[in-house]
Amino acid sequence: MTFEQWMRSVLDRVEGALEQYLPADSTEPARLHEAMRYAVLGGGKRVRPLLCHAAGELTGAKAECLDAASAALEMIHVYSLVHDDMPCMDDDELRRGKPTVHVKYDEATALLVGDALQSQAFVALTSDVLAPAQQAALVRELALASGSIGMAGGQAIDLASVGHTLTRPQLETMHRLKTGALLRAAVRMGALTGQIENGGPDAKALQSLDAYSAAVGLAFQVVDDILDVTTDSATLGKTAGKDAKDGKPTYVSIIGLDASRALAAQLRSDAHQALAPFGARAQRLAELADLVVNRVS
Amino acid sequence: MTFEQWMRSVLDRVEGALEQYLPADSTEPARLHEAMRYAVLGGGKRVRPLLCHAAGELTGAKAECLDAASAALEMIHVYSLVHDDMPCMDDDELRRGKPTVHVKYDEATALLVGDALQSQAFVALTSDVLAPAQQAALVRELALASGSIGMAGGQAIDLASVGHTLTRPQLETMHRLKTGALLRAAVRMGALTGQIENGGPDAKALQSLDAYSAAVGLAFQVVDDILDVTTDSATLGKTAGKDAKDGKPTYVSIIGLDASRALAAQLRSDAHQALAPFGARAQRLAELADLVVNRVS
Repeated sequence: MTFEQWMRSVLDRVEGALEQYLPADSTEPARLHEAMRYAVLGGGKRVRPLLCHAAGELTGAKAECLDAASAALEMIHVYSLVHDDMPCMDDDELRRGKPTVHVKYDEATALLVGDALQSQAFVALTSDVLAPAQQAALVRELALASGSIGMAGGQAIDLASVGHTLTRPQLETMHRLKTGALLRAAVRMGALTGQIENGGPDAKALQSLDAYSAAVGLAFQVVDDILDVTTDSATLGKTAGKDAKDGKPTYVSIIGLDASRALAAQLRSDAHQALAPFGARAQRLAELADLVVNRVS
Repeated sequence: MTFEQWMRSVLDRVEGALEQYLPADSTEPARLHEAMRYAVLGGGKRVRPLLCHAAGELTGAKAECLDAASAALEMIHVYSLVHDDMPCMDDDELRRGKPTVHVKYDEATALLVGDALQSQAFVALTSDVLAPAQQAALVRELALASGSIGMAGGQAIDLASVGHTLTRPQLETMHRLKTGALLRAAVRMGALTGQIENGGPDAKALQSLDAYSAAVGLAFQVVDDILDVTTDSATLGKTAGKDAKDGKPTYVSIIGLDASRALAAQLRSDAHQALAPFGARAQRLAELADLVVNRVS
């Protein structure tokens, strides 16, 4: 199977899983469920589900277990986008090529959509396709990665940094939390699903995968910063040039465009290096590192 | 032990558990953690933790397991208050006798405090004082009760109802979700903790407890509506008379004050009735039903 075929097959599964793990829009309160589905379905690169499936295949996880984990990861990611786009945060009007939830509906609905998507992620993770030990381990990974010492904490640092000059280490700390924590959780959750099914967590393998995730997570952000200044809104599906306009520190603003491109290439190589212990079995993860660095939107 | 002594002892434990399960305010990002602790600690009636402990004692749960479940329940409850108080929702400035989080800090911080408290609830529930089977069961209860078919869904119905005339069944549906679902989860989580420790879920006992929770949950709301028109803000610790001012339907506005008081008394009696199968072992739950109906704030 080529990488493109593999990716298509995973994306199809994940879309089906999201469809399944979200309440139907005929279920009351129907408008809230309609808005949750508007936010989640039919858009997005699904990077976290792809990482989860690739890591899970490496450890022999069942595909339907990875579907539940992937749906949960994507719901958390989308909830964070919906809240970040609200007027009291980044105040953005375009996301995944569509009006943001607070524009399409209203602010209160956007708030509740985000809140309810976070809960729904934990509903998905306690679906009975997963054994109780898997459910418990995956919930802990996802909750820690989402909360105040993970994604939400990174968002708080991001807000506090607007208009300030950050050092490069400070910028890295912010991104390690804001986007890195959930990407790392995607890889760990995939890997743990298979490991728990087949004997229990493997600390050494998880350590290598964490090194991979750290490189991919940072690369993802560096490339985001590059695309923000080199690509138009129509291609990105979100407002281009917004970070510079908002006075937000970025890799491009701190080290420049050329050095940012060199850094992305170096991080891709670091990611490949971290996968060395797994040999050819980690092919999909290696290809995903390439995808993250080479993407154009 | 008198009821007052029992309550004091549970409240002390719960305050300690919240202190323990919340990140320290010296942990980065410190301002976010400070705001989370501001929202949660040192205030509130802790009704959900009390219900959880009372139900857990009935089924022989370990106190430290109930502490983790109680901390999680209270974090979810407080996150909902913080978000509900935001300008795009109820726009309230006073809560538990203190300025609300968005007033004391800012809107973006209030949004992140709520988001991170929800995640932290699931971190608390996957603490290793609970066995994996307990963690999995409690996470599912809490996630379902919090989300779009529970608390967040009730909030959505509440928003949609402003300025509309609701029938009494519609009002009950709203409250069953908005406050009832989490109160029910508090009782179920306490009971399940002990049941799983001692052989597995007991469907018949849970059914009786659900009937108890339904009565107590509705009584809680009826009394809230009574207090909203009969008590001042200083006693309530939140803005009195706000529902009427906001054009929100309440029991008092639909059936009047006297009928609301009679309904609360009837629901208290229903709650006691539902506990009959447990005999004297359910004493604390019976006393909590009395507390909910007789409270003055």
